This record gives sequence, C-alpha cells and structure tokens, in this order.
Amino acid sequence: MRRWVWLAAIALAMPAIAQEPPTPASVVAAAKAEEWKAIDPADLLIMELAPEASGQPRMVVIQLLPPPFSQGWIGNIRTLATAHWWDGTTVYRVVDNWVTQWGDGEDDKAKAKPLPEGLRVVPESEYVVRSDVTLLAAMPAYDGGGRDSYASYTGFDVGWPFASDSDVLWPTHCYASVGVARDLSPDTGTGAELYAVIGHAPRQLDRNIAVVGRVIEGIEHLSVLPRGKGEAGVYDDPKLRVPIVSVRLGNELPDPLLFQYLNTESASFAEYVRVKANRNDSFYKVSAGGIDVCNVQVPIRRVPAK
Amino acid sequence: MRRWVWLAAIALAMPAIAQEPPTPASVVAAAKAEEWKAIDPADLLIMELAPEASGQPRMVVIQLLPPPFSQGWIGNIRTLATAHWWDGTTVYRVVDNWVTQWGDGEDDKAKAKPLPEGLRVVPESEYVVRSDVTLLAAMPAYDGGGRDSYASYTGFDVGWPFASDSDVLWPTHCYASVGVARDLSPDTGTGAELYAVIGHAPRQLDRNIAVVGRVIEGIEHLSVLPRGKGEAGVYDDPKLRVPIVSVRLGNELPDPLLFQYLNTESASFAEYVRVKANRNDSFYKVSAGGIDVCNVQVPIRRVPAK
Repeated sequence: MRRWVWLAAIALAMPAIAQEPPTPASVVAAAKAEEWKAIDPADLLIMELAPEASGQPRMVVIQLLPPPFSQGWIGNIRTLATAHWWDGTTVYRVVDNWVTQWGDGEDDKAKAKPLPEGLRVVPESEYVVRSDVTLLAAMPAYDGGGRDSYASYTGFDVGWPFASDSDVLWPTHCYASVGVARDLSPDTGTGAELYAVIGHAPRQLDRNIAVVGRVIEGIEHLSVLPRGKGEAGVYDDPKLRVPIVSVRLGNELPDPLLFQYLNTESASFAEYVRVKANRNDSFYKVSAGGIDVCNVQVPIRRVPAK
Repeated sequence: MRRWVWLAAIALAMPAIAQEPPTPASVVAAAKAEEWKAIDPADLLIMELAPEASGQPRMVVIQLLPPPFSQGWIGNIRTLATAHWWDGTTVYRVVDNWVTQWGDGEDDKAKAKPLPEGLRVVPESEYVVRSDVTLLAAMPAYDGGGRDSYASYTGFDVGWPFASDSDVLWPTHCYASVGVARDLSPDTGTGAELYAVIGHAPRQLDRNIAVVGRVIEGIEHLSVLPRGKGEAGVYDDPKLRVPIVSVRLGNELPDPLLFQYLNTESASFAEYVRVKANRNDSFYKVSAGGIDVCNVQVPIRRVPAK
C-alpha cells in the first residue's frame, strides 16, 4: 500500500520536473475562451484627461459595480456622465499611498458647479447589501480567504472582490478601486466627486464610503501625478490641476471599448487564485500559502481580435 | 442594578459627546517625548536623484533594518554606499502597483559596472531569523493581528513590522519597503540593485527576497515616476532613466539628518494601532475592528527643533 502511494506521488511529481510550475500569467493565458465574460460598455466610464506635456493622450477606463451594490450612487454617476457634467472639471487632489480625486473640488457652495437634476441622496445603509445566502455560497473558498484582517469572510463573485460579516456583504477598497468622496458621516456624497485608490488597500474605508467601481485601464495616469502639497493633499497650485476633457459612459462612444473579465466562478479563476497564493515557480523559494483579497487582481483584458 | 448599568454607560459616553474621539494623528501628536526613539544617522541611506525638470530637488531617505535582520545584504549596502558605487547609476524600472527599482540595471555582465571588493554572497536562509522567544513575546498583540492572510502572526518590534510562523520571523514587504532585486532562486542579489514597493503590499515576496529597509522620506519621488514600457517595466527609452547623483550613509553627510520613530513598545504606539483598527471619529460610520500589518505605518518624524 505504502509503495502505491509513493508511486502515485512520483507520477504526480513528473509534470513538475518536466516543465516549469504554473504562474498566475500562465494560468490566465491557458483559460478557455468561454471562461471570459464580456463587460457591457454601458457599465464603463471613459475619462479623458488633457494630454501629457509630451502630447501623449491619457484615458482612464472605469468599470462600474453591478447590482445590487452601490446602485444609488451609480445611478447618480450615470446621470452626471450623461449630462457631461465632468467635462471641464479637474483632478485636484493626490495623496501618496492613498487616493487621487477628481470632480469640481470647490468647497464653497456658492462657487460650486451646479449639479444636474435628479440626483438621489443615498443613505449610509446602502454601503452594504443584506447578503443573500446564494451569493455567499457562490463565492469560492481560497487559501487565506478565512484569514482576513478586516472581515469574517472574503471572496469573489460576478468578477469582483467582496467581504462579509454575518448577514451583510460589501465591496472592498483595493488598489484602483473607485469610491465616492464625501463630507463627515452621515453625508454619503453624490458621486460627483470621485477618487481612485493609488496605494495599499485602505480597507478601513469599507462600509464607510461607497465603492462604485474600479479602474481597469489607465490607473497609471492617476498614480503618477504629483502629490498635492495643500490641505489634505489638494493641489494648492491650481496649475497642477489636470483638466478633465470628458467623461462618457462606454455606450456613448461611437466605437465602444470591449473588455472581458475572467469569470470568477470558473475553474481557471480558482486555479489562478490557488497559484497566486502558492507560488512555486523558479523565482520563489517559499510559498506564502495564502493571499489577501486585494492581492488577487481579477484578470481583465481587451477583447482579443478575431 | 439595571439602572446603574445605564448610568455608568451614560457616564462613559460623556467624554465622547464632549470631545471628538481620538484619531491616529491625535494619538501620535499626544505621544510623550520619551516615547520617541532616535534613528542613528549611520542607519540611513540618503539617495539624491537628479532634480525635477522644474529644478525641484529629489531626496529619498531610506532607513536600514536593524540586526539581526538581513545583515549580510545590509553589510554589502554599506560597502556600496561607502564606495559611492551608486553615484552615476539610475532609476531604471517602474511597474505600477509593484516596484520602482534602481542601480546599474545592466543584464550583460561584460558591460556591467564593476562592484567593489568585499561583497558577501548571502544564502537564502538569511531571509528569515530563527525567532527568539523574547522577541516574539515583545511584539504587542493588536486587533486583527491574529488574522493575517500570509502568516500565523504579525506584529511590531524595534520600530518595524514583522511576520512569523512557528520558529521563524521575517520582515514584511509593505508600501515603501526596500528590497534586494535578484535573479531566479537561489540567487539572492548583492544589494547593488534595490527596489521600493509603490503599491499594495506584495507579501508573497516575504521570505523570498531580502527586505533591507524602508523609505522614510521622499517615497513620492519614486512613486510618481512614469511606468516603464519595456520588458518587466524597465524603461525602454533610456531618456526616462532618472540619474542618481549620490547615495550616502547618513553619517557621511556633513549635517546628518535626524529622525525619530515612535517606540513600538510604547503605550502610545499600542493606542495608535488600536485607534487605527477601530476608527470612530466623525468621518466613520463603522469601525473595521482589525487592521493588517502593512496598514499600520510606524510613525516617523524629523527631530523637532528645540
């Protein structure tokens, strides 16, 4: 009996000797076409910043969270984008290892840019969703998933990272997450002033600010900006503000951008997480044996040419 | 009895009504002078980059890890700095949400800048330290400290974040950590090629790469650099490389820079961690009730003027 176990172990070890162990990139490259799911262009915000001094264009693509998460704010964001409200506003605040923020940025209400009609005031209760058991059960367990510093449980569903405690579920603040800037609680913000995370995941903001999406392309145009020297990292020198040429919903573009995400319920995604948590390719000496939810970037790609 | 409980609850609630609950910043501001500990200038690396196009100087201050951690590489780094080896080298690699890397950056050994004599080849076993029970016991427990996705235990000692499993202890990769770039395992690097983390903590690198220090001032000069478009984020356009004017040990400067860190064994540091893990000032609606080790930045300041 013992001998068979050994033989089986050797047989299992053979491929590892014959070829390099998988990497996250190799798992993603090997995913089947049907494991990729389309992102609806109507769920994208395309933000065009003024070009760099060199003339290089700067486009930032944001994917909005799907229902039932943060839909009050996301409805407002759709209204603001359709009204072309952000056109002519600026990126006005950048704090290292924290956020880059944009919008009107005017504290004085008398001078602030008027908002379009029809924006909802969203209550704090909508930072979380009463979790439906089906959704929780659908999130695959993964190494380290039970050891999160901020929540009882973390996992993935419909292409997004979530955390949960008892009966509520919420989207997490990770690198490149987009959230709604606001004043002190219980203000929840309208969605007109937005930020993207450009540092270590500020998970203490979870359930305290509305996460509404994530930057899926062009985060570097926000992360390389000079850090603000004014109060709370606001640019005290107005010349540093980066003009926003336009923000459009993806389906408003004449030639919509097509993206796909790796289905978080697929076998390849489960393998991608397992490999990320247990690196043993030739760069690594020791496998971590776990991973935190924000270190698992859901693979997203432009739709490959046919 | 019930009435007394209510009265006690009201009495306890009074200060919260009368004043704003503490914030991490208020706890640090209230720390006693004797809770701050000096950082020896001999443990600093002062890296001066070429000024920005605007003429603005760019100085990056790195604090080296104390013994017994990573001392083989740190010895090499002292030798390299004393030989002024980095002068005239460059920052040559920048990857978004990953690292900024500097040194010679020449893969072709025939063209590489010759290294000074006396550098040690450090074994992989020195990525960790056999943990001495005293050191582990000295690390204060904190909320969330038992729930780390990468290690059985995380904590702080002598001003630094650490993780541990059974009988080993290692320094963690957090935002602004500085590590030794290397080739595939078992190569461990000399210390001549270094990187700083500019994104979410890449904790999977723990125990796989030597952490040698952290940027304590000027990380923004590394985090705002344009991301490299060449292989692995190396600048394919040599004009993007940022010249390193000089790297000096802090005690080599005519006028050494003086810094202090908040003693991680102090009451104020314990309170700082508790407050960071349980924010309830007026911006917050829900306290996280925990925090990950890389979200607890050890407070460091320039020595205040007398």
